[in-house]
Amino acid sequence: MLPVSQGLEGVVAAETAISMVDGERGELIIRGYPVEELAPNATFEQTVEILGVAEFLNAEREIPNIAYEVLRAAAERKDDSMDALRAAAGVSGAPLTMFPTIVAAYSRLLHDRDPIAPRKDLGHAANYLYMLDGQMPSAERVRGLETYLNTVVDHGLNASTFTARVITSTGSDVVSAIVGAVGALKGPLHGGAPGPALDMVFEIGDASRAEEVLRRKIEAGERLMGFGHRVYKVRDPRADVLAAAAERLLGGNPLYDLAKSVERTAIRLLEEYKPGRRLQTNVEFYTALLLHGLGLETPLFTPTFAISRVAGWIAHCMEQKKTGRLIRPQSVYVGPRGLKWDATRAAASRIH
Amino acid sequence: MLPVSQGLEGVVAAETAISMVDGERGELIIRGYPVEELAPNATFEQTVEILGVAEFLNAEREIPNIAYEVLRAAAERKDDSMDALRAAAGVSGAPLTMFPTIVAAYSRLLHDRDPIAPRKDLGHAANYLYMLDGQMPSAERVRGLETYLNTVVDHGLNASTFTARVITSTGSDVVSAIVGAVGALKGPLHGGAPGPALDMVFEIGDASRAEEVLRRKIEAGERLMGFGHRVYKVRDPRADVLAAAAERLLGGNPLYDLAKSVERTAIRLLEEYKPGRRLQTNVEFYTALLLHGLGLETPLFTPTFAISRVAGWIAHCMEQKKTGRLIRPQSVYVGPRGLKWDATRAAASRIH
Repeated sequence: MLPVSQGLEGVVAAETAISMVDGERGELIIRGYPVEELAPNATFEQTVEILGVAEFLNAEREIPNIAYEVLRAAAERKDDSMDALRAAAGVSGAPLTMFPTIVAAYSRLLHDRDPIAPRKDLGHAANYLYMLDGQMPSAERVRGLETYLNTVVDHGLNASTFTARVITSTGSDVVSAIVGAVGALKGPLHGGAPGPALDMVFEIGDASRAEEVLRRKIEAGERLMGFGHRVYKVRDPRADVLAAAAERLLGGNPLYDLAKSVERTAIRLLEEYKPGRRLQTNVEFYTALLLHGLGLETPLFTPTFAISRVAGWIAHCMEQKKTGRLIRPQSVYVGPRGLKWDATRAAASRIH
Repeated sequence: MLPVSQGLEGVVAAETAISMVDGERGELIIRGYPVEELAPNATFEQTVEILGVAEFLNAEREIPNIAYEVLRAAAERKDDSMDALRAAAGVSGAPLTMFPTIVAAYSRLLHDRDPIAPRKDLGHAANYLYMLDGQMPSAERVRGLETYLNTVVDHGLNASTFTARVITSTGSDVVSAIVGAVGALKGPLHGGAPGPALDMVFEIGDASRAEEVLRRKIEAGERLMGFGHRVYKVRDPRADVLAAAAERLLGGNPLYDLAKSVERTAIRLLEEYKPGRRLQTNVEFYTALLLHGLGLETPLFTPTFAISRVAGWIAHCMEQKKTGRLIRPQSVYVGPRGLKWDATRAAASRIH
């Protein structure tokens, strides 16, 4: 009997030329560029070009009317932002260009404000910030956002990217693949963690309380949001890039100093309580700080992650399509066998 | 370096107590019952109960207004039925009970007819047939549909079920998982084949032409829709169950005799051209015949598959949730490394 790999850990499910994650050395390469080389320097459009999916930037930014109706219905129910993004993406044709419009519109609708139409004369990142508050963003904010978008644009076969590839492997279309990926990214074990990571920093509130609060959490068996990663056994290289970007935006701000202090204390305590596990700061911790520094509210964190990652998803869809191979693993059955159907049962409950 | 399993063939990704597929022996067991025991005897509600997800049958059958709006917008664009199902499912809360309503409503909207509201006093299958044409279905049609729904309700880690499990594994919700699974089922390598299988029978038109048409297709390198399966190396046990159900509905009808003749000829020719490959009739061939016999149009075939399979998807979501394990495979990077960013490039193309 074949061994069961429930999380598919250690199983190589694809060859890819899009990104390389070296969890032992703490390296991330995106189409040849180390993340620390690409992220702070490229525009998001250039990163998309490097990913090989620049043609998807030619599509409309404005979303169809039915997408606005879906968002209005979702806002009335106060739906989760990722659910609203998934639903609106499902009725919009061009995920890469329309995601910022959907996310910004939903954020405004949740605050009873009218959506702001996208502008064609702004870059992808600048236009997103503009649609959130109607103000022309500073060059510093645009640069900060682009660094974030470039940093998280792709990351090997993470669960949402893998979802997009499995869907594509059946011969299905890009929108179906992207909608599935959004659903996966929503999960707290994947893209849903930056909000809670920031909440923890706010909960601590003052550096002098960090040790006490963190000890209590660890001893209660709570997972410290923003620390530890399935793949990285050393520091996530994205954390450094985002920390530097956050420092540029927030340097001198007490929140930044507090976050650094929380980070140092958390790593020290994790080593004390879980020696040898090498739990380090992950991408979520500084994502939260950077996006907060950009003025984004917590419910925007995961949807903003999606605004970036969708470019990686599309690149993986294109790559998967070329393989022409259906992704279809096996399962091992552990249930009963050979049961007989009791004919009287069927007759009893039939409703017709 | 680890070996690459691009299609995850032979990789066991889960333990499951929901169904067992034995491709070598041609067996399918659903929660202990052989498919040929369960499918022709149980109501669909009983099958759902056996799957352990009966509580999901308590939800509303009526879909929210926004779902009707999504379907109307899709019908205006003449969207594919599976795209419409995916989009409407994304704004509806209860997939198991709402899928028949969505599918029937969309079918009617495509024909410029008003949707028919679901009835609570009918069983799941009967209500679906009723919503399609407003007529009370005969007991024979209900039985035929239930046999179909029971037959295809679950089938190990097929691509859509696997999609649902990957999405669930991130801690995401059932609707996100189901919407992703619908996108996967749409693909022609997965659930999108029954229509083309029937088209082929119609194209042949007369038993005397079967050999000539099929030889031409095989020699042109075309895949014969309705034959061959990744997992089954012998006859798909579901094909027998569906063939018997189709015979009960269509026995004596020339189409049924033609289909049997096409099947015999196809298997003989496949053995002649691809000896040892053991290509046999798969579930799609008789799905097409049975659903056609039930009066369903071709665009309804894959959505009707989804109306059944959604019960299996939900059961897998529940099972996956219990494992608490993120599904996250590895990839092997085959692209370039160590590229340097040209600083002049960034400056040149910045739009702000």
